[in-house]
Amino acid sequence: MYEALTSFQKRNNDQLNHWLNQLPFQQQTLIEAMRYGLLLGGKRVRPFLVYATGQMLGTAVEHLDTPASAIECIHAYSLIHDDLPAMDDDDLRRGHPTCHKKFDEATAVLTGDALQTLAFTILSEGALDSNAESQRIKLIQSLSRASGAHGMCIGQALDLAFENKDVTLQELESIHRNKTGALIKCAIQLGAYASGEKGVEVLPQLEQYAEAIGLAFQVQDDILDIISDTETLGKPQGSDEELCKSTYPALLGLEGAIEKAQSLLEEALQALQAIPYNTELLEQFARYVIERKH
Amino acid sequence: MYEALTSFQKRNNDQLNHWLNQLPFQQQTLIEAMRYGLLLGGKRVRPFLVYATGQMLGTAVEHLDTPASAIECIHAYSLIHDDLPAMDDDDLRRGHPTCHKKFDEATAVLTGDALQTLAFTILSEGALDSNAESQRIKLIQSLSRASGAHGMCIGQALDLAFENKDVTLQELESIHRNKTGALIKCAIQLGAYASGEKGVEVLPQLEQYAEAIGLAFQVQDDILDIISDTETLGKPQGSDEELCKSTYPALLGLEGAIEKAQSLLEEALQALQAIPYNTELLEQFARYVIERKH
Repeated sequence: MYEALTSFQKRNNDQLNHWLNQLPFQQQTLIEAMRYGLLLGGKRVRPFLVYATGQMLGTAVEHLDTPASAIECIHAYSLIHDDLPAMDDDDLRRGHPTCHKKFDEATAVLTGDALQTLAFTILSEGALDSNAESQRIKLIQSLSRASGAHGMCIGQALDLAFENKDVTLQELESIHRNKTGALIKCAIQLGAYASGEKGVEVLPQLEQYAEAIGLAFQVQDDILDIISDTETLGKPQGSDEELCKSTYPALLGLEGAIEKAQSLLEEALQALQAIPYNTELLEQFARYVIERKH
Repeated sequence: MYEALTSFQKRNNDQLNHWLNQLPFQQQTLIEAMRYGLLLGGKRVRPFLVYATGQMLGTAVEHLDTPASAIECIHAYSLIHDDLPAMDDDDLRRGHPTCHKKFDEATAVLTGDALQTLAFTILSEGALDSNAESQRIKLIQSLSRASGAHGMCIGQALDLAFENKDVTLQELESIHRNKTGALIKCAIQLGAYASGEKGVEVLPQLEQYAEAIGLAFQVQDDILDIISDTETLGKPQGSDEELCKSTYPALLGLEGAIEKAQSLLEEALQALQAIPYNTELLEQFARYVIERKH
């Protein structure tokens, strides 16, 4: 799996670089900051899921580049805005200064804005298999629904609204199903939609898988925030606790959170069993989600 | 023209309200702030241009609602982010507290983000004439190109980069052709694309018209910033000067700027003469651009 992760990561970086090179005003700080925000590290989890899902369904990798690039732009923009002083106020991201630290706040706001737009430019103009227009529209619908007030943005808003408040497990799940889960699920949807009819047929099982690993990803993040150190994590350890954010370990205890992650893994693996393709890569990824150390 | 402006404005407000009502988590601050940013006043210039262009080409008004709503979401998001403390740091917009003053900065960042996404949700899901998929994709391409690093965002970035610096007339035009011009031109394109073949035939003339009024709009804004008072303008008079922003009156003198606006009007009217449809409304709008008092 690590081989595939690295290979898709490299492919995604090349693609993103290609799109950045098409932009006018290459000498401007905005473009430099977009490059910094997009290309400085990152595991490329969402692109990986697009590629892994599409390849499982028999779609050629070059027909998955477009949705993989678009979703990474959305993820990168969200990190830049989330790190802003008015939001989580983080100085480090992936071991490097955050965008507003490296440049300035105005640039960071604009860079996030422009990366969001770039996602939709890529989806509306990039290469796709069969070039079916209805397929392209499906991809745009899916990504826009997952990103805005139906998904990621409302998730971040709920997270801020609940800061310094006691939340129930249900509220915490609602935050994360939107804040991180929606985009993880969307990655799987993009891989499926880019694969045409075949993808649509197994979409319910794929979505069930995605919802489980999306939540597991967050539970594991919360766990790592407690047990990891700053160097491994690339951000200050315990930073969630410092902000009095509700976390799974806070609600369930560390042991309970580890059990929760395990049961989500089981759920994900079960969903894959109903899919009549080679699900090995997705299975390995599900295990990676809760075994990773950063 | 004022009758049409008011009628399209009302129609646009109803449409935007309809889209806002579809969002989940209606009780959350994010949704309240999206409503505040979208519906609190505004001339609805971009929607007007979509409707006026489409109607001129014989397209029914209900087939223009989708692009008109989407472009207003982009405009509204850009105002919210431009007003942020890290950007123009404005307290008033349209005579009301700006989004970050009414709510808070984090909410203002997220609200802008979510409104940008909503624009693409609307374009990918909203009703269109003939429901041609290729038409829908054209609309999405046009709006995304005009909004991000190819247009509006780079324009704002150039504006910030040139703050407190002497700029040439050419540089000033480059700022405004991107910052405000790109979206004005896009409004005309959306009206044309939503009208199918007919629209594509007269697109070059329409774009020439749009480029001229887009620039004229900015020249007149700069003029009004000098000669108007805060009450009429809805924002502090002279606020551009305070920030040492380059303006047309600063570069050309007040008289020179007024002449520049006049010559752009002539250019716009000339472009319309080559269009074999009833261009009256677009003509009246061009005059309005340089005759308006706020």
